[in-house]
Amino acid sequence: VSQSSAVIEPIPAALTDAVAGILDAFIDDKQHQLAPIGAELDQLIDAARRAVRGGKRLRPAFAYWGWRAAGGSDDKGAPILTAAAAIELVHASALAHDDVMDDSATRRGQLAAHRAFSKRLRDAETARADAERFGRSAAILLGDLLLSWSDELLGGSGFKPKAIVRGRVYFDKLRTEVVAGQFLDVLAQTKGTSSASAALRVVRYKSAKYTVERPLQFGAALAKADKSLLAALSSYGVPLGEAFQLRDDVLGVFGEPTVTGKPSGDDIREGKRTLLVARTFDKAGRGQRAILERYFAQPAVDADGVAAVQGVIRDTGALDAVETVIAELTAASLVALDHAPIADDEARAALRVLVDRATNRTL
Amino acid sequence: VSQSSAVIEPIPAALTDAVAGILDAFIDDKQHQLAPIGAELDQLIDAARRAVRGGKRLRPAFAYWGWRAAGGSDDKGAPILTAAAAIELVHASALAHDDVMDDSATRRGQLAAHRAFSKRLRDAETARADAERFGRSAAILLGDLLLSWSDELLGGSGFKPKAIVRGRVYFDKLRTEVVAGQFLDVLAQTKGTSSASAALRVVRYKSAKYTVERPLQFGAALAKADKSLLAALSSYGVPLGEAFQLRDDVLGVFGEPTVTGKPSGDDIREGKRTLLVARTFDKAGRGQRAILERYFAQPAVDADGVAAVQGVIRDTGALDAVETVIAELTAASLVALDHAPIADDEARAALRVLVDRATNRTL
Repeated sequence: VSQSSAVIEPIPAALTDAVAGILDAFIDDKQHQLAPIGAELDQLIDAARRAVRGGKRLRPAFAYWGWRAAGGSDDKGAPILTAAAAIELVHASALAHDDVMDDSATRRGQLAAHRAFSKRLRDAETARADAERFGRSAAILLGDLLLSWSDELLGGSGFKPKAIVRGRVYFDKLRTEVVAGQFLDVLAQTKGTSSASAALRVVRYKSAKYTVERPLQFGAALAKADKSLLAALSSYGVPLGEAFQLRDDVLGVFGEPTVTGKPSGDDIREGKRTLLVARTFDKAGRGQRAILERYFAQPAVDADGVAAVQGVIRDTGALDAVETVIAELTAASLVALDHAPIADDEARAALRVLVDRATNRTL
Repeated sequence: VSQSSAVIEPIPAALTDAVAGILDAFIDDKQHQLAPIGAELDQLIDAARRAVRGGKRLRPAFAYWGWRAAGGSDDKGAPILTAAAAIELVHASALAHDDVMDDSATRRGQLAAHRAFSKRLRDAETARADAERFGRSAAILLGDLLLSWSDELLGGSGFKPKAIVRGRVYFDKLRTEVVAGQFLDVLAQTKGTSSASAALRVVRYKSAKYTVERPLQFGAALAKADKSLLAALSSYGVPLGEAFQLRDDVLGVFGEPTVTGKPSGDDIREGKRTLLVARTFDKAGRGQRAILERYFAQPAVDADGVAAVQGVIRDTGALDAVETVIAELTAASLVALDHAPIADDEARAALRVLVDRATNRTL
């Protein structure tokens, strides 16, 4: 980490504030559009506001630094911030639908959207089963709305139509690939098995490309990046995104609640089919396999069971193997950054700090 | 009906064939994009193909005639057909999600997407509960994919970016309004009550604007329609779309299976909260109300129960009242068409035939 990167803020408060302000103003507009249709739609608007609140704004940050890497101006009022905010709408949509699919209770410390919808109705009058069904339906519709709005916000970002056409190439890839990655993930979770290569594929499409590579390229393309920069951002972004997700997987198994914001061993209880888990199953001997079968993916498993699974993941060497992969990916990302044709020193420094933050998970 | 409209085909085979071909070719492209990610994604591609197959292509037809009404060329290879096909992707997305929300078994005579996904998995190996959950998740993802693709197809339609910006105004309205209408509908179904005005609001946003007005304006805006034509298309399209939906509601209660493709009295069993039903509840006396409470919205109701509810709907005068509304709306639509500044005689004739077909439901 160079001196300049020691002082740089890779997700500047000016950026996160601007994105939050843009999303709020956009939803205000939508509220005015929907109000004449019916007062009940305020529920949907409220849910949209909650859905875009919070989060680390990681994707907007990568879009912004991709823009800067390609020579885009550092004017904080520029259309790039609106375009970056459009990705947050895609993300909010994906989370709303994800929580329905997993029937997750919470999201970012609040009730998940479908649970909030059903609670509101149940508090009023309605039977539990109906309210739950309503909650799911409303959250599906909320996600659809947010996804449609992502285009609308991008279209109204203030970029010239030709620039938007350039950016949309990556915006479109991002949206298709994240669904593809999600589909593979849902399939693996359902089948309850996943090879290491299948797990890595999910990591690549659902996380690495979606969170890092495509947002970077989207921002860069809006600033008319050439092919060599777009390729360099891919060489930097894909391994970084993979390392980021693998770190997340390790924290899901071994992380402290104070760091992760989730109960310790949460991914063990849920039975999440990560690369770490795929490697563990691959290498487990008969006795270790028995422990996994007893405690892994058991929602009611206690602390001893969690500890036993953690032991197997360590003893099989799966944890070390994944840490090695994280280190290799991190190194590959930094090498790619060193060779990337980026003129803007601030952008280069920010992208370097992001590697450190993402892979050590101090973001 | 003038002589020219007697021979005109309002949904020409050349249009429906072109739309089908465009959607097939687009999904072929997507298959090539997704194939390297994983062979399992063929499931998702297959489901997308099924989702866009069939249907009356009513929305593309209105988009096409809106285009022609505004002076767009009748070149059948023009970008307008691709833009019109983009609306079909929105619609396929809405249907996939709708069927998850309602847990509908079938769609267009085939298994609904979520049922097809779960069947495929269950046939292979998986327990029923897991397969059903997978089916729902996969259908949610399918709908997201189709919705994202709708933008992508529009963006790649071959129109100049400036034309697309004009069209997108109505494309965006269409996508927001249909979700708003769906939300109000889901809420009314959940609460199990609906006033006549609330029912009409759902008809307006979920059907009239979505199926007729916005597609017309979308096509017209792509051909650079002026404000007076856009307003005239609204005055024609909204009452027509409302009449069309009210006819559908009447058929849902009284229609023959050979006409509707659904079991007789299906909407009575489902308890659909239509204008017809809202009027019936408003006007029902004590005895009639008892019949409704006994048989309406009872999935297992027999033919005698269906007939009893049909009798109440007739006897309260609700059927006559709705038929009167349909006739008034139809007349209003035709008057608006007569006054609309449409130079193209073929477009005018087609729009006239569409009124007849839609409100008599011979489409």
